[in-house]
Amino acid sequence: MAYSIGVDYGTGSGRVVLLDLDEAAEVAVAVIPYQHGVIDTIFPATGEKLPPDWALQHPMDYLDVLRRGIPAVLAETGVHPADVIGIGIDFTSCTVLPVTQTGEPLCMMAEWAEHPHAWPKLWKHHAAQPIADRMNQLARERDEDFLTRYGGRISSEWYFPKLIEVFEADPDVYQACDAFVEATDWIVWYLTGNLRRNSCTAGYKALWSEDGGMPAEDFFQAVNPGFTRPLDKLGDVFYPLGTRAGQLREHVAEQLGLHAHVAVAVGNVDAMVAVPSVGVSRPGSLVMVMGTSICHLTVSHEEVRLPGITGVVKGGALPGLYAYEAGQAAVGDMFEWFVKTWVPERYLDEATRRHASIYEVLEEEAARLSPGQNGLVAFDWWNGNRSILGDADVSGMIFGLTLATSTADVYRALLESTAYGTRRIIDNFAEHGIVIDELVACGGLPQKSPLLMQIYADICGLPVVVRDSKEIPARGAAMFGAVAAGAKVGGFDSITSASDVLAAPIQRTYQPNAAAREAYDRLYQIYRELHEYLGEKNVHLLHRLKQVRVRSLNDAFVNQLV
Amino acid sequence: MAYSIGVDYGTGSGRVVLLDLDEAAEVAVAVIPYQHGVIDTIFPATGEKLPPDWALQHPMDYLDVLRRGIPAVLAETGVHPADVIGIGIDFTSCTVLPVTQTGEPLCMMAEWAEHPHAWPKLWKHHAAQPIADRMNQLARERDEDFLTRYGGRISSEWYFPKLIEVFEADPDVYQACDAFVEATDWIVWYLTGNLRRNSCTAGYKALWSEDGGMPAEDFFQAVNPGFTRPLDKLGDVFYPLGTRAGQLREHVAEQLGLHAHVAVAVGNVDAMVAVPSVGVSRPGSLVMVMGTSICHLTVSHEEVRLPGITGVVKGGALPGLYAYEAGQAAVGDMFEWFVKTWVPERYLDEATRRHASIYEVLEEEAARLSPGQNGLVAFDWWNGNRSILGDADVSGMIFGLTLATSTADVYRALLESTAYGTRRIIDNFAEHGIVIDELVACGGLPQKSPLLMQIYADICGLPVVVRDSKEIPARGAAMFGAVAAGAKVGGFDSITSASDVLAAPIQRTYQPNAAAREAYDRLYQIYRELHEYLGEKNVHLLHRLKQVRVRSLNDAFVNQLV
Repeated sequence: MAYSIGVDYGTGSGRVVLLDLDEAAEVAVAVIPYQHGVIDTIFPATGEKLPPDWALQHPMDYLDVLRRGIPAVLAETGVHPADVIGIGIDFTSCTVLPVTQTGEPLCMMAEWAEHPHAWPKLWKHHAAQPIADRMNQLARERDEDFLTRYGGRISSEWYFPKLIEVFEADPDVYQACDAFVEATDWIVWYLTGNLRRNSCTAGYKALWSEDGGMPAEDFFQAVNPGFTRPLDKLGDVFYPLGTRAGQLREHVAEQLGLHAHVAVAVGNVDAMVAVPSVGVSRPGSLVMVMGTSICHLTVSHEEVRLPGITGVVKGGALPGLYAYEAGQAAVGDMFEWFVKTWVPERYLDEATRRHASIYEVLEEEAARLSPGQNGLVAFDWWNGNRSILGDADVSGMIFGLTLATSTADVYRALLESTAYGTRRIIDNFAEHGIVIDELVACGGLPQKSPLLMQIYADICGLPVVVRDSKEIPARGAAMFGAVAAGAKVGGFDSITSASDVLAAPIQRTYQPNAAAREAYDRLYQIYRELHEYLGEKNVHLLHRLKQVRVRSLNDAFVNQLV
Repeated sequence: MAYSIGVDYGTGSGRVVLLDLDEAAEVAVAVIPYQHGVIDTIFPATGEKLPPDWALQHPMDYLDVLRRGIPAVLAETGVHPADVIGIGIDFTSCTVLPVTQTGEPLCMMAEWAEHPHAWPKLWKHHAAQPIADRMNQLARERDEDFLTRYGGRISSEWYFPKLIEVFEADPDVYQACDAFVEATDWIVWYLTGNLRRNSCTAGYKALWSEDGGMPAEDFFQAVNPGFTRPLDKLGDVFYPLGTRAGQLREHVAEQLGLHAHVAVAVGNVDAMVAVPSVGVSRPGSLVMVMGTSICHLTVSHEEVRLPGITGVVKGGALPGLYAYEAGQAAVGDMFEWFVKTWVPERYLDEATRRHASIYEVLEEEAARLSPGQNGLVAFDWWNGNRSILGDADVSGMIFGLTLATSTADVYRALLESTAYGTRRIIDNFAEHGIVIDELVACGGLPQKSPLLMQIYADICGLPVVVRDSKEIPARGAAMFGAVAAGAKVGGFDSITSASDVLAAPIQRTYQPNAAAREAYDRLYQIYRELHEYLGEKNVHLLHRLKQVRVRSLNDAFVNQLV
């Protein structure tokens, strides 16, 4: 009997899964909410208000997930600690923290605790936007090759914008730290005592590539003349996914109720780890991790530089294959917005009466509509557009409203809008030689909304496979843990062979309906023309709309102070 | 002491006002709902279902308004019948019915009662759309001059589409009737025994003009080769507004509790009669009759042929002046749609708690927003666009939605969208030499929503005058009744002099706010660019969207039958 543990670090909580390697079954799950959550308003160390766009976390919350979650899954199942052979970690990214030579977070030391820049910056910390803007502008001016690996644009969420922010805003913290590490690597370091930086986040977030290395130092100096040694805090050795980082340190094993022989895999990222977890190991499948947003991943034997993606990294998800990431910024978030701002009382009454959720009532009504019957086309740009445009300043749109438009009509239009967004991404891949022939959906939404899945099949004209697990990332992390334990102990010589056996089972496959496709093809053609006009050629219209809003909010704020 | 009675025939009821000519005061109002309402689903004479787009009415409902309403206002006030000197009528238009030589409606005769085409067709009967389409196409091909008086397009709601519909669909009814008359003229005929067709509906709805006469007969023959005598049912003598049609027939006076000396004015139309009722008698003012939709009216000394209007008619509202009509198809209707499909429970709770309407709660929240703060631009095309496009197949749009968009943000955007629509109409007038310097608002909305009026002032950059009467049309009709009585009896030698004295008093004037205008000018510029792209140059996008909807609805209907 052999087990592996997967730990999935999300935005608000960590999830620990115990995976039975013989049965390929998740036998226990523990969810540990972060006590401090997302620190984005008041900075606890001083009680002062944080500036807008900040998002910090507390490193002790991360350790709590291990210390409470691992004993919990063991206790729940009675699994013997000796039977646990591996641990894998996945984390949000780019979530980074400054640490000392021994891996101690600066924010945990009395002298640095009151420095906000000493704390872990969560992936959605956006205060480094001006630095990212400078980096993008310079990279374009200098025609930097690395930029084409990232669809032509880097994000303020990534490693160097966040690091240079510390360098510029709090040089003392910058000097004091020995490393600025991804949280996923920091957890692995904590577990094993070894700093083994993973190549996945190095590739997707820190501008590194196996073939091309790093951007030249003079690029960074052009961003900030004093920033002369870009690798000082990042390091220059990166370990491929699926390799073993080490084994548990004695005292940590004791704390967690495990044996010290447990193998620990190199750190991983929540979206990437989903790829083997849903059984995808070949080109052609597009994995969609669907929750508040969608992360799209696909793999290919060749490297193609194409616009409209977030990044391509060799070995970014599976060894030896180029992994391409794209995304949609508001999906579940937009549906939640709809329920909050747009659903009349009778839906609530109906939901209460039937002990159902409002989503279920809406879904039932929306499912009764034929494709095209709502006469609506919407654009899901409620939180900007990640792919194809990489533009945070565009906004949501709805076309086709009439006096006969019902609430369910609009709800269906919003579901459809996200599928048009995905089809646009698939088209973009195809136009650059990466052909998608299947969608594989996981995350919270696919199981909640069969209608959504059917709409994806009909709009994209592709089968949609839904995998049966609520713990896709943690399961994937556990699979990497098993691989780290080695073929002899765990039985798997690679993540691909582990995926063949351990991937979550197929729950349901949705096939495209021919009649629906016809209506959706017409609507998608309209979508494409509007996309080109309003998202590309005349995107200044939506940008100007945002400028008016920002200006008006600023004026209102100033007037309030007067 | 002298009084005049105004009778305003709306879509669902008639309103009778007793106007005190010495005090310029509405001393009593009676509202008489139509017993049969709008007949648009089941045809009562046979119990059969009416086809879509049909809308009929019952002529006895019209007479009921007189027979119940006039005695009611006299009884309520104790006014002596001898003191009533005039009656004026205004009606929806084009509402038309086939009648005999003596004015008897065909539908009241046993042999014709089961013919749907024998019944009065309400203004919003749209089943003659294919005929209107043919007429428009032919008029364009033949470069018919008359078309330029109607902004380049005639409506299916008008006289000849409805008449030719009878001619083609029920030739027996066509042959059996001696006249096909506007309901407003029919009421005057009933009251006086004289058929005195008014020149206003002849101009706006029946393609006649004082200067140009009628379209040539061969135009009508091109529409239908058998339709050779277009004036057979219409007549060829039309009386200007403000003239006296006659006096009450003895037996009718008796029925109504009035004296037979009462003068009756030539019939009028609900929107047109508002012009003198709100005190407008000069060029420069734009009257907005604001309810479910907006009807815009302005006058000028010159005739200008311009696109984007519904019509220009000499003497159409005031003697001697050219009256221009334009409109927006969904205003109050769109706000009602919003409340029905888009307002979450908490607004209802709040409204209940405060004994307020949902509109009041929304207005209060929306009023707290600064102009531009919602970052939204909407197009009020929920029921198509009457002016500028004259296009029933465009639909509503919203731009700028984000996860931070609130319900009140959207509500305000919808209010704003109607004001942008009006500014677009004002711009169109100005581009053709008709300069508007003031808005005069009446109807239900202006008194209910001060925010809406301030938004109009800010977006249009013009003062908005709101007149204090809930009975603007009926009051205007009564003013025409007083003029019909003659200068000696009524004291007014023209509707202009009557308007100077009897117009509804000013309730409030809204002045544009400079800071708001700046934000709105930016937004309106965006609106104009989107208008040009999506409403004009690439209107095929919204048209195609509608085609998909219609096709899907048809397919769903057919599948239901299978």
